Parts: sequence; structure tokens; C-alpha cells
Amino acid sequence: MAEKIYLYDTTLRDGSQAEGISLSVEDKIKIAKRLDLFGMDYIEGGWPAANPKDMEFFERAQRLTWHHARLAAFGRTRKPGGRVEEDENLLAILQTGVKVATIFGKTWDLHVYQALNTTLEENLAMIRETVGFLVERGLEVVYDAEHFFDGYKNNPDYALACLKEAASAGASWIVLCDTNGGCLPGEIEEAVKRVRQVIDKPLGIHTHNDGELAVANTLAAVMAGCRQVQGTINGFGERCGNANLCSVIPNLELKLGYRCLPPGHLRELTEVSRYVSEIANVIQPNNQPFVGYSAFAHKGGIHVSAVMKNASTYEHIPPEKVGNKRRVLVSELAGASNLRYKAAEMGLKLDGRQTSDVVECIKELERQGYQFEGAEASLELLLRKASGEYRQPFQVDYFRILVEKREDQEATAEAIVKLRVGDQVVHTAAEGNGPVNALDNALRKALEEFFPAIRRMRLTDYKVRVLDEEAATSAKVRVLIESRDANNSWSTVGVSTNIIEASWEALLDSMEYALLKEGAQREAAGA
Amino acid sequence: MAEKIYLYDTTLRDGSQAEGISLSVEDKIKIAKRLDLFGMDYIEGGWPAANPKDMEFFERAQRLTWHHARLAAFGRTRKPGGRVEEDENLLAILQTGVKVATIFGKTWDLHVYQALNTTLEENLAMIRETVGFLVERGLEVVYDAEHFFDGYKNNPDYALACLKEAASAGASWIVLCDTNGGCLPGEIEEAVKRVRQVIDKPLGIHTHNDGELAVANTLAAVMAGCRQVQGTINGFGERCGNANLCSVIPNLELKLGYRCLPPGHLRELTEVSRYVSEIANVIQPNNQPFVGYSAFAHKGGIHVSAVMKNASTYEHIPPEKVGNKRRVLVSELAGASNLRYKAAEMGLKLDGRQTSDVVECIKELERQGYQFEGAEASLELLLRKASGEYRQPFQVDYFRILVEKREDQEATAEAIVKLRVGDQVVHTAAEGNGPVNALDNALRKALEEFFPAIRRMRLTDYKVRVLDEEAATSAKVRVLIESRDANNSWSTVGVSTNIIEASWEALLDSMEYALLKEGAQREAAGA
Repeated sequence: MAEKIYLYDTTLRDGSQAEGISLSVEDKIKIAKRLDLFGMDYIEGGWPAANPKDMEFFERAQRLTWHHARLAAFGRTRKPGGRVEEDENLLAILQTGVKVATIFGKTWDLHVYQALNTTLEENLAMIRETVGFLVERGLEVVYDAEHFFDGYKNNPDYALACLKEAASAGASWIVLCDTNGGCLPGEIEEAVKRVRQVIDKPLGIHTHNDGELAVANTLAAVMAGCRQVQGTINGFGERCGNANLCSVIPNLELKLGYRCLPPGHLRELTEVSRYVSEIANVIQPNNQPFVGYSAFAHKGGIHVSAVMKNASTYEHIPPEKVGNKRRVLVSELAGASNLRYKAAEMGLKLDGRQTSDVVECIKELERQGYQFEGAEASLELLLRKASGEYRQPFQVDYFRILVEKREDQEATAEAIVKLRVGDQVVHTAAEGNGPVNALDNALRKALEEFFPAIRRMRLTDYKVRVLDEEAATSAKVRVLIESRDANNSWSTVGVSTNIIEASWEALLDSMEYALLKEGAQREAAGA
Repeated sequence: MAEKIYLYDTTLRDGSQAEGISLSVEDKIKIAKRLDLFGMDYIEGGWPAANPKDMEFFERAQRLTWHHARLAAFGRTRKPGGRVEEDENLLAILQTGVKVATIFGKTWDLHVYQALNTTLEENLAMIRETVGFLVERGLEVVYDAEHFFDGYKNNPDYALACLKEAASAGASWIVLCDTNGGCLPGEIEEAVKRVRQVIDKPLGIHTHNDGELAVANTLAAVMAGCRQVQGTINGFGERCGNANLCSVIPNLELKLGYRCLPPGHLRELTEVSRYVSEIANVIQPNNQPFVGYSAFAHKGGIHVSAVMKNASTYEHIPPEKVGNKRRVLVSELAGASNLRYKAAEMGLKLDGRQTSDVVECIKELERQGYQFEGAEASLELLLRKASGEYRQPFQVDYFRILVEKREDQEATAEAIVKLRVGDQVVHTAAEGNGPVNALDNALRKALEEFFPAIRRMRLTDYKVRVLDEEAATSAKVRVLIESRDANNSWSTVGVSTNIIEASWEALLDSMEYALLKEGAQREAAGA
């Protein structure tokens, strides 16, 4: 049986230190739940003493059921000259109720003098007392030896003495950190081997990507004996980021034969990576190894024909092992066959003319910025309209939005909608906490009495992407809306330079789709 | 004297295979000239037989003066069963007039059978005759052994036989390629050592980043004896990209003590990297090692206070060695020390009470969803207001927005603004292609006659981020706006459940900041 490597995810703590990433408590809960199901062994939720949002996260997290992961709270060794029993940072960890505490402490003499302004002896006492305090209270302690490798280069005896202090005080894991991210794999390997000679505890590795070597350094540490890897999804993290678990995990499992995730879970890697990017609102680089959209995309003609004969000629692993897909970048006619496949799924028949019209129409819409991969309900409405079988359930004459803001008051938003259902005219208005919400409310109010299905559906997600940012306030935006009723969820899209118009398109598609599905179900029940 | 490593840049050929990168001949000329001055030893201009644009590049390149680099043209071994004298791909290389030809050939038996459909013997003849043909005509030949490492794993004798063939036919360099990008540093090291035992020619390394290990693999190869590194600026390239020379070079020079560039040129690295991104129209990732905007950015409060005492505590190299800069970010994780640093930068003095008030205020705003690290102008306004030194240049009484859409017509948007400048009242209206654009237009119209500086500024970027997506259309949004005048650019932020109100806040800050800077400049000129 393959040897197990423990996965320690710090996306929620170290990852959120990345410039441009700011996670709400709700975001953190979503990410943590997904990573738990994925099979992380440890999830570091945050630093409760430093951040009130993190304390709120732990309060909510403690009420949830965790399937696989142990939650860890982060903190530092007690202050120089202080008492552990009075250290707010340690008391906050106890208050979270977690069973794992991750404590970072100094290992580099330079830091002891210059950052802590204390003596080498006092730093050892800080490590000993802090780890001991938490262990006595029943916590599993992960000791993160900050700057271990720099400290080891500068003063190896002292760096090792710090580790020994943490180990003898009862830490379960000693984690060696390349905090500044500047080490080379050979240095890591040599230092880990040395540590193994003097420390009789399981070791972990925590690297940063400042030299573009975080993944290589992590692998070198594992090969030298570390059994815990710390990192983040997509390598998020301060400066150049942390070790990217989305690359570390497949390298360990597929290339080196270790076991990290529960069997079969590696196939979720691409989805997990994209989910976390989505929640963090970070655009995933197309060329990201293993999980990127281009990671198995073949462009050159020679590559493409060879790949068709035997994929291993130009692919280092089969993409499906990490849940990714092969792509051949010859877009031209790829559309028609895809589209016929989609139409058949919906039970629609499109003739050749209809198909090529729809292909043209979709190409034009995509050129304008529409994206149907994330908006299959809008695509289905488009195909149904093209097949000539679709009847619009209502017609909108107009809508009007009024937003007003007076000095020092909150803005108000009001929407007026006039529409027709058959030969009946509905003219109504509603308020909302923003213009799109007002429009949503007015449209529901107008439709509910005719179509009770509208009452059963709700919008569950609303996304805005600015498509040409440099056009500033006159930029085009794409709006994606996700909706749900008791049984289904569906997504729709709208594009315009006017964000209200784009939202309107997506809203309208969402409601039409709800009615379409309702009609289909009624027919199915009547049949 | 440090040992020299030869730099071989293939941004113009392998780099341009990246999805989304398309370089014109003019682009290629610009990049090549910059890389020549930077100090590349070889610049691969393209594959003249495969791409007419590349032939045009070589025609133009031959008329230019090159200071440092040798231009190389790319091609493959002759066709199975063909004659070198009639091979169009080789004749095209001769036609370019370059003095260096880089020839790729098969080394992996699987490829010989499955991609070339020929025999192992014929492939050896193809290598021998192709290299010999070009050497006889006075060219320096770089032999790229495609898939060398995969071939070596599968059939080491044959892989080595291919290299021997190229070496004995007169190739000046034997370059070992990890074409599929899936190798690990240990495999690279072992194979390179083996090759050195049997090949008496200088060796090169060419890696891809499919395992996120291209830089580590390149360094491993150099440490095992390779003396040429092939790669691209910013790691551009097919799928996950090539070895990133912007990381390889500083690692070789600063960490391993080799010599790559002419003395002093490493300081141009950041500028070269950004220049190439600019020309390729690729947004550079902020977290790119060494050269990224965030590569030396410090966010956590502990890091910041330590860096201020001694930068090496949290920086693996001094940023100026690669022409980059240190930055300090403000965020909820940071304390008073970040803020004092910022205030000092702005020439503001905050007393202890003011500082702690601002820290509290920023924490509260960040809890609401504001983010100041990407909105330094909003932060500066906040700090100036806190210092009591700021006077608002105008007061807004109200604004009102009207958006209307009639069946089958485009939506219209109109904004009405009433504001006061001193004791003068301005009441005006404007249209726009969306509500925010209309508001922008109305505000400018109202302010321009009082503040001509407004005419000189323009908005250059507009970003919308939905903060709690599951709240759907009643979700809170954050808007970031970037603006620019002749000399500066600045960013501002707004947050609200009403997207128009959020945009309004960011717009207002942007215009106030423009007036603030204008005032500062006027004062500076008058002083």
C-alpha cells in the first residue's frame, strides 16, 4: 500500500494573505466544506486572535459536520516575557473549540534579535511553554518553524534547538517553513535529512513560491522524509504564493506513488481548483498546470495529429485523472457537432439549416461576450427558439428603473414593469435594495398571479464580470444568474454595456426557463 | 570567475504557441531587439518553413544590428525517406541567412513508430544527414532532442544513440527536452549525468511546466552539467508554458552563482518581463516570482514591522537586484505600523489617537467589504479626512438615475446630479450607455467648469465583484475604479447592495483625488 502524505490546507489563512484576495466568512465556510469533502486532512481556518472574521468563521464551523478534515486554528508563541495563561492569542485558540492548534515560532536567530527583540533563551522558553500549554489542554499541536531553512543556514544548532524544544514539549508535527520562499530543492533535501537525524516526530513542509520552486521544494522535502505538506489551492498566498496543492497532490500521487486523497478523489481536483478561484473571485490562469483550461490543449498541427493517434505522445498524464479535459484548438467546426449533441439531449431536432444558423448566432454572441458554458438554460432557450417550437409565455412592453441618492441618505431603487400575458396587461412597480433587485421584485410581482411557478423559484447566485475593463464605466459587462426551484437549478446569461440591461436579460431567461420546465413537467404528469 | 550559462530564448517560437498569444512581425522585432540588449545569447526567431510570418521576421531581422544575441531559425529533421538537399524545411532555414539552426528530432522510440511511421534506423539517418547538411554549410547547429527524457525512460540505449548521431554529425549543442513537461528534478539530474558520460559536447536543457516544475528541472539540469538553458520570458508557451527565464536567470545568478547576463543587466529583468507581457498583450500575474507587482509586497502586520527593521527578515533577495520594488499593503490583517508607513509616504502626520481611530474605521469598512489594498486613493482620502486637514471641494445634494428599456429597443440611461461648489449650485443631466456611465458623464459636466483638472483625467478600469453571491440580486457589490491623468494613475473603491451607489462612491473618490493631486501640484509649483 502506498505511503500516506497528510494534506494541510492553509488557503483560508495564508492563502487569504494574497494581494487582491479577501474572503468573507461565508466564502471561507464554502471553501472549507468543499475541501473537507475533497479529502484534506487538515484545514487551517484562520488566526482567531488577529482577525475577528476568523473567530466568526470558527463559531460557524463548529456547528457544521466535518467528514474528513480536522480544523486547525493558527497562532504564535507567547510574547517575550509574557505568561501563556494570559496570552490573548492562545486564549483565542482555546475559545474556538478546535482540536488542532498550529503555532508558529521563531527559529532564525536574526529574527529573535531583530523582530522579537529578545534573547535566544527566552525564545526557546516561549516555544516550550506555548506548545506545552496547548498540549496539556488536549490539543494536537502542529509546530510551524518559521524561517527554518534560513535559520538553519545561519545558525544550525540554534534552529535545531528550537525544533527540539517544540518536539519535547509535545508537538505532534514539526513543520519546516521556507517562509521567504527563496530556498532551492537541494538545500531543502539536505536540511530535512539532518532534521530527521535529531527529531523523532513526524515532519511537515511549508514552502513559498518566491523562486518559482515551491512545488519542487515540497516534493524534495517529501522525498527526504516529510509526511505533511502545507499549501493552498491554486498556490494562493502572500507575495508569490504558497506551494500549490493543485500541483503538489497530483505529482505526489501520479508521479511519486504516494497516497494523499481518499481513493478516486483526485478526479475532483480541477473542479475544486476552479470552485475556489470562483469564490475568491480570481481568474484562473489558463496555463495553470494540471487544472488550467489550456493544460491539455493542443495547438500545433503536429501535436494534434500525434495526440489523436496516441495521447501519451504529448501528454504527461491522462487529463481525466485530475478531472481536466483534452482540448484541440481547431474551433471552426467543433461547434456544430457539439450543438447537435446538446439539442438531442433536450429532445430537440434541428435540421442542417437550423444548426448552421444557430452556430452562426452563437459565434456572434460569443464574440459580443456571451458565454454559454456557464449558462445552459440560456443556451436551451436559444436552441428552442431556433427550432421554431418555442412560444414566449409573456411579452414585456417596457421597464423603467429609478435610482436616487440624497446627501447622507442611503440610495433608493424602484422599478416599473409593463408586460402582457396573452391579452391581459400588467403594469406594476416595486422597490429593492438596488436596481436589479427592484427589477427582480417587480417582475415577480407581475408574473406570480399568472404563473405560480415563479413563487417556487429563487435566484441563488449573481455574478458580474467586466469584459473590457479599460473601457471603464462604459465597459461591457456579463451577468450570470443561477436559479433554483425544489428540484433543479439553472444558469442564465446577459451581456450589455448597461449592467441593468445585462441583468435583465439573465433575469428574463431565468424566469422563462422556470416556466418552460414547469410546462414540461405538467405535460409529463398529464401524459 | 563565475561559470557562464548560455541563455537561449524561444519566446518568439515556443512562447507564441501559448493559447491566447499571437505576435505580429512587428511585435517579434520589438521583443527580439529588447532581448538582444538585455543580453540573451541566442534568440530563436521562428520556424520559417511552417510560418510565412516567421520568414518575414528573419528578412527584417537580418537588416538590423545585433549587439549580443545570435539569431536562430528552427526546423525539424528531414522527412523519412526524403533527401536533405530537397527538404523545404531545411532550405527555408538556409534562406533566412541566420548563422544558427536549431533542429528538433525524435529520440523516443514510441514517437518514431507512432508519429513518424518509420524505423529506428531511418530516424538515426535523418538526424545524421540533417545536422551534417547544415554544418557543412557553415551553420552552428543546436540539436533539440525532443522528448529526450521520456525516450530515455522507455529505451535509454536508443535515446542515447540519437544524441550520439547528432553529436558526431557536428552539432555544437545537444539540448535535452522534456517536451511533455512531466519530469521530476531527480529524473532530469540522473539522465543528464548519464548523458555527460557518453556525449562529449556542451549540453542544453529545454523544459515545460506541466508539473509546475520547469524552473526546478532547469536548475537541476544545470547543476548536473547543462550549460545552455532554453526558455521563454514569463514562461509563455504551449499548454502550461516553457521554463520561465525570468525565474531561471535570477535563480542561477543570485542563488547558484552562475553568470548568465552581462554584468549589471539583471536589474533590467522586471522591466523586460513587463515589456514582453505588454507587447504580447498578456496581463502579468501579480504574484509572478521576482518580477510580479506583488512579489515583494508585504501585507501581514508582523511581516511589515519586521521588514521595516531589516528587509532580509521577509525577503529572499533585495528587490532592486531584479529591478523590482518593495510595497506595503494595507489590510485588515495589518496593524498600525502599516498605516503609519502609508501616512508617512503621503506626508501626513497622524497622532496615536487618530491612528487607532483610522485602524478601527478601516477594519469596520473591510468587514463591510471594502478593500483598500487595490484602492490606495480612497485610502489616502480616508487618512487625510482623519488627519483633519482635508476640505471637500464640492458637496452633492442628490443624484437620480433613470434607466428605461422598451420592447426590442436598446436600454437608455440618464443621470441627474445636483451639487454645490462653494455657494454655487449646479444642476445638470447627462446620458450614457449604462447608468454608471451616465452618472460619470453628469458629474464631469457639473464639475468641469470649476475644476479643469477633471477634463485631464479619465477612468481606465472598472471592476465589479459580487461579495455575497448567494444573496443573488440583493447581494452586496464592490466596485473598483482606476483613473489616470497625464502623470499618475490611482484606484478607488465603493461598496453597496446597490451597484450604482457603489460605483458612485468610487467615482466620487476618484474625482476628489484628482482635485487633491492637482491642488498639491499647484501648491508645489507656487512654493
